[in-house]
Amino acid sequence: MSAPNPLIRDRDVEFLLYEVHHIERMCELPAFADHERETFELFLASAARLAREQLYPLFREMDEQPPELIDGRVHEHPKMGELYASMVELGILTAGRPESVGGAQLPQSITTIAYMYLMAGNAGASGYPLLTAGSGHLIESFASDELKAMFMRRMYDGEWSGTMSLTEPQAGSGLGDLTTSATPIEGREGVYKIRGSKIFISAGDHQFLDNIVHLTLARVVGDPAGTRGISLFAVPRMRPTADGGLEFNDVHTSQLVHKIGWKGLPSLGLSYGENDDCHGWLVGEPCKGLRYMFQMMNEARLLVGANGTATASAAYHESLAYARVRTQGRRLDQGGARGGDTGPIPIIEHPDVRRMLLRQKAIVEGSMSLLITTARYADLAAHGSDPAERARAQLLYDILTPVTKSFPAERGFESTSLALQIHGGYGYSSEYLPELWLREQRLNSIHEGTTGIQSLDLLGRKVVAEGGKALMTLDEELRVDIEDARRCGVDEELCDTVKIELGRVAGLTQVLGARALGGDVIGMLAHSVDYLNLFSNLVISWQWLRMAAAACRGLGGEVDDEGAAYYRAKIEAARYWIRTDLADNARLAVLCESGEDSYLKVPDSGW
Amino acid sequence: MSAPNPLIRDRDVEFLLYEVHHIERMCELPAFADHERETFELFLASAARLAREQLYPLFREMDEQPPELIDGRVHEHPKMGELYASMVELGILTAGRPESVGGAQLPQSITTIAYMYLMAGNAGASGYPLLTAGSGHLIESFASDELKAMFMRRMYDGEWSGTMSLTEPQAGSGLGDLTTSATPIEGREGVYKIRGSKIFISAGDHQFLDNIVHLTLARVVGDPAGTRGISLFAVPRMRPTADGGLEFNDVHTSQLVHKIGWKGLPSLGLSYGENDDCHGWLVGEPCKGLRYMFQMMNEARLLVGANGTATASAAYHESLAYARVRTQGRRLDQGGARGGDTGPIPIIEHPDVRRMLLRQKAIVEGSMSLLITTARYADLAAHGSDPAERARAQLLYDILTPVTKSFPAERGFESTSLALQIHGGYGYSSEYLPELWLREQRLNSIHEGTTGIQSLDLLGRKVVAEGGKALMTLDEELRVDIEDARRCGVDEELCDTVKIELGRVAGLTQVLGARALGGDVIGMLAHSVDYLNLFSNLVISWQWLRMAAAACRGLGGEVDDEGAAYYRAKIEAARYWIRTDLADNARLAVLCESGEDSYLKVPDSGW
Repeated sequence: MSAPNPLIRDRDVEFLLYEVHHIERMCELPAFADHERETFELFLASAARLAREQLYPLFREMDEQPPELIDGRVHEHPKMGELYASMVELGILTAGRPESVGGAQLPQSITTIAYMYLMAGNAGASGYPLLTAGSGHLIESFASDELKAMFMRRMYDGEWSGTMSLTEPQAGSGLGDLTTSATPIEGREGVYKIRGSKIFISAGDHQFLDNIVHLTLARVVGDPAGTRGISLFAVPRMRPTADGGLEFNDVHTSQLVHKIGWKGLPSLGLSYGENDDCHGWLVGEPCKGLRYMFQMMNEARLLVGANGTATASAAYHESLAYARVRTQGRRLDQGGARGGDTGPIPIIEHPDVRRMLLRQKAIVEGSMSLLITTARYADLAAHGSDPAERARAQLLYDILTPVTKSFPAERGFESTSLALQIHGGYGYSSEYLPELWLREQRLNSIHEGTTGIQSLDLLGRKVVAEGGKALMTLDEELRVDIEDARRCGVDEELCDTVKIELGRVAGLTQVLGARALGGDVIGMLAHSVDYLNLFSNLVISWQWLRMAAAACRGLGGEVDDEGAAYYRAKIEAARYWIRTDLADNARLAVLCESGEDSYLKVPDSGW
Repeated sequence: MSAPNPLIRDRDVEFLLYEVHHIERMCELPAFADHERETFELFLASAARLAREQLYPLFREMDEQPPELIDGRVHEHPKMGELYASMVELGILTAGRPESVGGAQLPQSITTIAYMYLMAGNAGASGYPLLTAGSGHLIESFASDELKAMFMRRMYDGEWSGTMSLTEPQAGSGLGDLTTSATPIEGREGVYKIRGSKIFISAGDHQFLDNIVHLTLARVVGDPAGTRGISLFAVPRMRPTADGGLEFNDVHTSQLVHKIGWKGLPSLGLSYGENDDCHGWLVGEPCKGLRYMFQMMNEARLLVGANGTATASAAYHESLAYARVRTQGRRLDQGGARGGDTGPIPIIEHPDVRRMLLRQKAIVEGSMSLLITTARYADLAAHGSDPAERARAQLLYDILTPVTKSFPAERGFESTSLALQIHGGYGYSSEYLPELWLREQRLNSIHEGTTGIQSLDLLGRKVVAEGGKALMTLDEELRVDIEDARRCGVDEELCDTVKIELGRVAGLTQVLGARALGGDVIGMLAHSVDYLNLFSNLVISWQWLRMAAAACRGLGGEVDDEGAAYYRAKIEAARYWIRTDLADNARLAVLCESGEDSYLKVPDSGW
């Protein structure tokens, strides 16, 4: 019997946080001065325990018993309320919020890891607090004190939950076309009547708390068409009455979307104002809704990346344990599958199984390191010691967000599929878990902006903004880390390769940017996903170079055999990624630069 | 309302069969002299109709109502018997078998397409006749006349079904380790007592026919260990009695495997001889079981490729139709997702959606062309006009089989995932079909030999056998087609690229072969999957070059606007594949040749 699945390995978290990213140094900043490595560790240990002891044991069961829609209300899994209470008790709702609103004021680099543990245990269940925290944060950032008292307080205390209510059936990702309307109610400053329909609203209804606050995008009647005319409203399911009670607010569930994973978290169609009696409270100023919502979307995008990483991590550890105990075939140089005199070997000894394991490892740990990197920049952007550091970190956070969202989603799906493949025929059966992780993982390249949308955000906006300032800043960061890796004794070949490929990305970006300046926007963006892949390969190589550098430092210190093996595996994974995936950038750059236009040229009737 | 999903487009079949592969010329061979293009067309039209009108309408329902195991018997979907009868009536069981056994003696290049239609309609349902035909064919090829009369006749007539009973729980792909035993029954020549367990036996039980014949691998007591000691037995669920009746043969269902797709086709654990009363009839000679079974496995591998193609095709057409009617966003050079004055556009106008469509098209039609190519060589290997032609075709069939199995499985999964992606949030819901096709597709890289096993078959066996004779023969075929493409007016650039890459594969194979001859088997095979991918990229480029050549010929003839658009799209798809995927071969060759050994070097305790 093998050990239970760790979901995320504590040693990897320790290595990444303190040996690679030195997150303990965050405590030197005033915002985090009350913390020290020990408080980080205590919080993460609690999150890991909750994930392993409470969330994960209900993972399969919540998939098999999805929520039901009965008489207009959603009935979630009966244990969900308990799980929510435990997550509230952990403090996840306000772990990253300031003490002034009752938060623990932990760095995002720590809270992201905490979420990762919860997600690896049970993605659906972790969605409820995630959405509540994000929507509460929107109110905290942009709403009046009155609305904070009315909504945020109870959300942060775990009494009410929240949602992110953006998507409409006809508009999808084209938010500018949303038609949900808001009409001022005479005599009630800041309160509007809301009418419209939303779709794919996660956690849009449940029974375990008294109220749900939908942070809803709508257009005030008369405001401009397109994204410029969108405002943000807090629309509670139950609205506060004058006497301090709650009454129904005419927003209800029109549909329960049946989906292939994340079944612990219902996805709903919501109908607002069918009886013309749905009230919404304007958050902040009118017509700034989309800008506000981007705060939540950016947080959510990082957490989608965290989810892709967490899911792939759980699947990786499952397949690693399986490969160690499952025996089959013989060594390739001793007859392969022919069998005979000697017994079968553990499949981890077959080169192709090792390839599938190392590929998973490279993707999972590369993603985890990227998540910490991006979250750390978010911390510095908000709390850095001076305006220059904050501005610099903001640029890095901005440019890395689309990669941090999409890479763990896309490659995490591939990685999870490899975990299934290692299980062979059993992997295709629902008696093992990889198929469930595969179904869960498939959402991550869709929600919070598809991979295509992330690629347009990166190439059409982030790398070219302010004359390429963010990319130049990233370039500086990489150069420092490449030289550090060299000093630590990482193979020169690997350091040189990353440096050359860094130059390639910079050069390519200039060419593409010039194309857009010349008026050829399509010529710039037609290969945006190829560009995103190329950019991601580089960014993950950077992460692996940093991990290899830390491993070299570790090997140079006092270390036992097992510790040395741990570090050596990191170095091999770095080598694997740079030689295998970064090596693909030459081809990708040609596709982007050559103006390869086959798919633009397919005649309409010829498909 | 768009037209119903064609599943597989008839025009593509016509183009491939008669404009690219000239399958009508098969009728010049004596074996197919009774046929003409018209009889091919009639048969395929019937298959298409059956798929569209009977199989596809039950596809979703059979997924939602999977078989149940009740009191030791499997209860399949109640309509399955009707579907089976319709497929028998179509003649699929013996479409490719000779007239002497009641078959239609059609070329495999035609029967493969017929299966593809059925599979695109309902993979699970098509599995029953496929397994019956394959196991009947084993008896036809290797068993005595007595056994043919006893089993094959009724299987071919549609009265009994058959299975392929190889895998054991502990051995998986390592068939040499199988432990199912066979003990001669004194006084009954050729009849043995069978004891053991099998797993993943598709169609291992059902109610709609009277009997099921399991073609079962077992080891006669005393025979050698490993694959050399395996024999093949026909083990009916009900065995014939002396008075012409049937009695239970002590083989029963021990387990119904719950799986994530193909739910129309139950996958079972079988237990043989629990009461020491299971009789098996030896097929052919003892200890040749695995060799015999390879006939069926090779047929089955082609049909797995056909299934991967069919599933990806249905998903492609679904996403193409969706992309034409679903509107969202604006042109990239007119503001993207911002919305505003003009209305949203059909998503097929977005470059990245076009990329996802053309990638699917390239994979689906490239796979379909490869299936026809390989099936045609199978036809020539069996029925070619002289021994030299037959031997030559056999080599080509052998070398292409692992690619024809694995490429449509691996890339078909990617393709199906893109169909889901095009559906956005709806793609993740089970109200649309792409998620179901994705679940179905995931099996194809596992059953009938995983992709890893296919890669070892290709590199460890097929390309190096007889001093590389098969590869040299393939090289000749490609050279002829490259020059033909040039003559037809296909871009010189594309022709040259394929020629260069052909040389790369030949050179690389020599290097790797020499490594094995020098004793370094691991050094040859450690990157077998990279080699398989590189080889597949070339083989599919060859298919696209042939399609582009046919399209150029078509454009040179009399053609209306729609016809011309059809041909132009083929040329763009060829360009896309060669520029995008064949361009990856330089990198893959470096990985194979450089001895990149990261995954071999990860220390055991360091993972």
